[in-house]
Amino acid sequence: MAQPSCSAAQLAQYFGPNATNAAAAASLICDQFTAVSMQYKDTKHAVDSTYLLFSAYLVFSMQLGFAMLCAGSVRAKNTMNIMLTNVLDAAAGGLFYYLFGFAFAFGVPSNGFIGRHFFGLKQVPSEAQDFDYSNFLYQWAFAIAAAGITSGSIAERTQFVAYLIYSSFLTGFVYPVVSHWIWSTDGWASAFNTGNLLFGSGVIDFAGSGVVHMVGGIAGLWGALIEGPRIGRFDHTGRAVALRGHSASLVVLGTFMLWFGWYGFNPGSFNKILVYYDESGNYYGQWSAVGRTAVTTTLAGCTAALTTLFGKRILSGHWNVTDVCNGLLGGFAAITAGCSVVEPWAAIVCGFFASLVLIGCNKLAEKVKYDDPLEAAQLHGGCGAWGVIFTALFAKEEYVKQVYGSGRRHGLLMGGGGKLLAAHVIQILVITGWVSATMGPLFFVLNKMKLLRISPEDELAGMDLTRHGGFAYAYEDDESHKHGIQLKRIEPNASSTPTTE
Amino acid sequence: MAQPSCSAAQLAQYFGPNATNAAAAASLICDQFTAVSMQYKDTKHAVDSTYLLFSAYLVFSMQLGFAMLCAGSVRAKNTMNIMLTNVLDAAAGGLFYYLFGFAFAFGVPSNGFIGRHFFGLKQVPSEAQDFDYSNFLYQWAFAIAAAGITSGSIAERTQFVAYLIYSSFLTGFVYPVVSHWIWSTDGWASAFNTGNLLFGSGVIDFAGSGVVHMVGGIAGLWGALIEGPRIGRFDHTGRAVALRGHSASLVVLGTFMLWFGWYGFNPGSFNKILVYYDESGNYYGQWSAVGRTAVTTTLAGCTAALTTLFGKRILSGHWNVTDVCNGLLGGFAAITAGCSVVEPWAAIVCGFFASLVLIGCNKLAEKVKYDDPLEAAQLHGGCGAWGVIFTALFAKEEYVKQVYGSGRRHGLLMGGGGKLLAAHVIQILVITGWVSATMGPLFFVLNKMKLLRISPEDELAGMDLTRHGGFAYAYEDDESHKHGIQLKRIEPNASSTPTTE
Amino acid sequence: MAQPSCSAAQLAQYFGPNATNAAAAASLICDQFTAVSMQYKDTKHAVDSTYLLFSAYLVFSMQLGFAMLCAGSVRAKNTMNIMLTNVLDAAAGGLFYYLFGFAFAFGVPSNGFIGRHFFGLKQVPSEAQDFDYSNFLYQWAFAIAAAGITSGSIAERTQFVAYLIYSSFLTGFVYPVVSHWIWSTDGWASAFNTGNLLFGSGVIDFAGSGVVHMVGGIAGLWGALIEGPRIGRFDHTGRAVALRGHSASLVVLGTFMLWFGWYGFNPGSFNKILVYYDESGNYYGQWSAVGRTAVTTTLAGCTAALTTLFGKRILSGHWNVTDVCNGLLGGFAAITAGCSVVEPWAAIVCGFFASLVLIGCNKLAEKVKYDDPLEAAQLHGGCGAWGVIFTALFAKEEYVKQVYGSGRRHGLLMGGGGKLLAAHVIQILVITGWVSATMGPLFFVLNKMKLLRISPEDELAGMDLTRHGGFAYAYEDDESHKHGIQLKRIEPNASSTPTTE
Repeated sequence: MAQPSCSAAQLAQYFGPNATNAAAAASLICDQFTAVSMQYKDTKHAVDSTYLLFSAYLVFSMQLGFAMLCAGSVRAKNTMNIMLTNVLDAAAGGLFYYLFGFAFAFGVPSNGFIGRHFFGLKQVPSEAQDFDYSNFLYQWAFAIAAAGITSGSIAERTQFVAYLIYSSFLTGFVYPVVSHWIWSTDGWASAFNTGNLLFGSGVIDFAGSGVVHMVGGIAGLWGALIEGPRIGRFDHTGRAVALRGHSASLVVLGTFMLWFGWYGFNPGSFNKILVYYDESGNYYGQWSAVGRTAVTTTLAGCTAALTTLFGKRILSGHWNVTDVCNGLLGGFAAITAGCSVVEPWAAIVCGFFASLVLIGCNKLAEKVKYDDPLEAAQLHGGCGAWGVIFTALFAKEEYVKQVYGSGRRHGLLMGGGGKLLAAHVIQILVITGWVSATMGPLFFVLNKMKLLRISPEDELAGMDLTRHGGFAYAYEDDESHKHGIQLKRIEPNASSTPTTE
Repeated sequence: MAQPSCSAAQLAQYFGPNATNAAAAASLICDQFTAVSMQYKDTKHAVDSTYLLFSAYLVFSMQLGFAMLCAGSVRAKNTMNIMLTNVLDAAAGGLFYYLFGFAFAFGVPSNGFIGRHFFGLKQVPSEAQDFDYSNFLYQWAFAIAAAGITSGSIAERTQFVAYLIYSSFLTGFVYPVVSHWIWSTDGWASAFNTGNLLFGSGVIDFAGSGVVHMVGGIAGLWGALIEGPRIGRFDHTGRAVALRGHSASLVVLGTFMLWFGWYGFNPGSFNKILVYYDESGNYYGQWSAVGRTAVTTTLAGCTAALTTLFGKRILSGHWNVTDVCNGLLGGFAAITAGCSVVEPWAAIVCGFFASLVLIGCNKLAEKVKYDDPLEAAQLHGGCGAWGVIFTALFAKEEYVKQVYGSGRRHGLLMGGGGKLLAAHVIQILVITGWVSATMGPLFFVLNKMKLLRISPEDELAGMDLTRHGGFAYAYEDDESHKHGIQLKRIEPNASSTPTTE
Repeated sequence: MAQPSCSAAQLAQYFGPNATNAAAAASLICDQFTAVSMQYKDTKHAVDSTYLLFSAYLVFSMQLGFAMLCAGSVRAKNTMNIMLTNVLDAAAGGLFYYLFGFAFAFGVPSNGFIGRHFFGLKQVPSEAQDFDYSNFLYQWAFAIAAAGITSGSIAERTQFVAYLIYSSFLTGFVYPVVSHWIWSTDGWASAFNTGNLLFGSGVIDFAGSGVVHMVGGIAGLWGALIEGPRIGRFDHTGRAVALRGHSASLVVLGTFMLWFGWYGFNPGSFNKILVYYDESGNYYGQWSAVGRTAVTTTLAGCTAALTTLFGKRILSGHWNVTDVCNGLLGGFAAITAGCSVVEPWAAIVCGFFASLVLIGCNKLAEKVKYDDPLEAAQLHGGCGAWGVIFTALFAKEEYVKQVYGSGRRHGLLMGGGGKLLAAHVIQILVITGWVSATMGPLFFVLNKMKLLRISPEDELAGMDLTRHGGFAYAYEDDESHKHGIQLKRIEPNASSTPTTE
């Protein structure tokens, strides 16, 4: 579609000398078009900002999802602790990402490794870099998601101070650097890079199977490895014992909120919706690609959930809702990299294998006595890595061109050759290396300084009682016990109470 | 408002032979207008897609609402079971609706009874049919709502396998066919039909009091009738015993989420927001109608809630929050058909009677010993049917014309004659017949094959323990019991414990 | 940016007499521009309506947040009661605000004290006043928030009838009048007033630190003062005893929902997003200001949460998640007035002091034996008042001009002089006076008529049992007790039960 571009000089020439004032007529007309063109720019800014802001709100709502998922997955005695970490992810993340995280991630021009502008949102909004406040808000919501993933891995046994330290480090430095590499226009591995593309391709990790989920998962892996399993997680014979979370309702609530928020995470990663695609007709534009991304996301999660349902039924004999929830989330974590560049049918393939990857990782974790209360390393690390590989196999040429521009590579199984796969293998190696090299030593030093793991006494009693001022729940009333009445009774006139049985 | 339509030939003629190059001048100017016009089309696609996608996300969030409402309304021992069905509604629904549900519902051109294109989203986006991925996502979120309604009716006593079978059948076939009749441009009863209108009117069921709520409710009615009541629901004298749900907090949480999501369900059913209305001034357009629909939805629910509050207070002597929640939802289910074509004051009438219908249906259900743990048949079936009738009485001429185009009929009490009412009576009969003829035999055969109801032992013990791997909650810690400490205690230094009383 | 304004007469003159039909050519061209201009108007309405409606939905979701926050903060025995009040805030508020609340608040032209048009949404949409249905929905969601705040202060000891009375009075009259003063174009203290500005400035309370939070908080203060503290809140020596809420999970859930909804509350208060700013470049417009408002809101809340975390850790020795939640909400209540007119760094200042204000108010409340189960008067009243003052100190000239137009005053510490501060001191005094003069006598009379406080017996037993038909929870099954099995047990094969210990 041509942009309007009225040439007054040209038009005046066409009117010619016989017109009373050709120049004035031409300029009157062309000025109108300029005004219309300005209105379109305003409209585009408003529409895209509306789209991005509400997407950011959805991504933020995932923090609520994480909090409820984590709370429900731990034992009641550690609920206050885990929820506090989730609130603080968002709160501390807000300050650190404002002060320097956003600058490290997107402060171009940069050296390709780490950004260096926009500290404290200085010079934002920036027309040159096309960054407005809404971009910051959106990226902040992403940054706190990464820290939220990690907190799941080390739940129920970690000192709160350790939590504050690693969370700030992850949100403020480790994660922003990775997002700079892959998502910034100056990032050395970015498919948005307008200069040199890694393997002539760049990494296509659209919404962050690698950048967010692998980073969070690998950080959690190191934390959980260094801390070791919770007391009682493996019995004296080495057999795994399920330490079941205290509320499946909170797990389901959290899962649905995460699903809801993922519609901000994946389709929202386009940032803009009012973008036409040159070659396609007028009906099909970025608005369609956004919708397709929501569809691929949905289908991958649905397929992974169903696969897990039947897979776990065969393995354990139960229809287990919390396993299905984890399978669903594994499907989402996997499709996140390729959601915008694959066909809906490919998303079903993605979800199917994501479920198998998760089941396999969980088997392996049990074998090596790795304890991760939320299965976060398995789910976000394992399925995230599968998602990165999946994208390199199934990315469709047409979609890659529309989303990233021409000159990028598409998937190996879609006839695009192996260069994208090479770039993606590099991405997995580099992310694993970087997070291991930064978070590993941090957890190691915290452990050496006795700042990482709580005492066995605290762990048995629960952190809420010893550190957080009391338990999360009080369904019974002390008052009632004094009178020998149990208030939990359903019907006022029921006569049975536990104490009289 | 006139569409811009620049005629270069006409313009060149006006400039005349004295201009240096009249044709070039005219074409330069008209080309600009063409470009502007293309930009407007892009803008319209982007704005409408943003509107529809976020509406779809809201409708999806109703699944979270259903899950929490259902969970809170059943006993603790069946919580895992009911939540799993809610997760699977969404997940299995995603696959089936992608594979054929959407095709059955909207695959035009069709024979008026069932669609036959777009299987697996083939040929979507379709400019001819004006279907983009966002339309699919929106309709999928509707389809899973219908199945969610049904699961409430048969809660606490249904085999999980039966659930998987009927849910797939409902989402993949029964519901899509009904939505084809009423909502597709080829549907035999559709008011969107551009050819023959049923009774010269077509059915005005804007967001689905009939298409969604009656379908879900009647399906549930058959399931619950064939299964019979839960053990203990009616005592040996035949008196009804309330089997109270285990958490009113989850009921309220679910209700508010459904309210929130209904703003996607009803106003979202416009699909587009950037539509001007010819006769009205430039200020009033579809954006106003969308807002009005949100207002009528709100007022109907609010009125029904208040009516139920006072009604139940008179009948039972209590101010009961779960009853108020059900009343509220009954008001929403009723206004769903007419939300876009009635005045706000009429919505208050709608909500008032919806509450009475619900109270009446519940009285009747108790009398005939019909047991529906969520009151789903009463609420969605009963209030849904009332909503269909209500619309035929109160639809306003001006609004019908704006939303559906001219040539349709409006409400009997608004001076529109009885044709719309006739069409709506037909709708109620046909939906009742179709759902009964499909879901009734299905439940009957499942029952005969011993696949429908669980064993009395399982029912007494609860399905979570016997089928789903354990209970949903664990507020107390096994560890604590061994040491004689009850961890639920509120204050660390409190001295009373149940065991020492 | 110039609006397109094609003058056909002028253009025809430029074409001159040598053109074949100069008038026709000019009119053909200018008619096109008129059509384009109409399309832009439609687009603007659609974009702004989309923005406002989804913002309204977010604000509505705060009602869910309030319900869960309140439920979790009270004891289990009063959960049904408090949740019912939250549902009814929304429901009764819907009717009253439709019937007259909106008219009192925005029914201009008015006398500056109270509005008098738009009763029952008559003459809405109004092009003259630029009020569409979406404006009503948005303002209704605000009105019910105020009543929700108050219900927290008087929780656990108030008769339900008293609740119905004060809630209707507050939503239908007290609050609308205040919003008329500050937000209506005719309001005597409004910075939107196009005539006389209070102190040549008008009050800048963008989203209602005063209008909503102080009103709700002060109403609650009077209710709680007149009722007196809950039984057991202060022991016989006068020492404060924490009556802990029954579920920290619900508190965190509610807090995150309120955070989520606040993105509708604060940035949504712009009402429109497609507005360009004259002096600024084409890149920066109201869409940027909206984004900045979301950022300032986030930063204020985050800072207040962190300050509270460390502050309470020093004071109490615990890392307390419910205190952090309250601190966070205090930060939001404070930034609400100035969110659109301050820099992000100033929002950090705002949040820091908001936390200190809340801690101080809570200390004071304990000293004077004031009992507010939700800390609502302290949080919304105290932090709200601080937010009003903060705005008068830190409002930035450039932003005030963009949001309110030129001729208003900016913050004292930003070089704007003391006139804005004077107006804001007046606002605090007048709101305090008005709410005290209306709600104080109402609570006083209700108390005299024995309609306010429940009996001590009811209070000890809990309102759910005595007034609302039973307790909110039933985690154990009566059936199980009869068989001596406790169903809450985690593992089916575990042997310990409370009764056998």
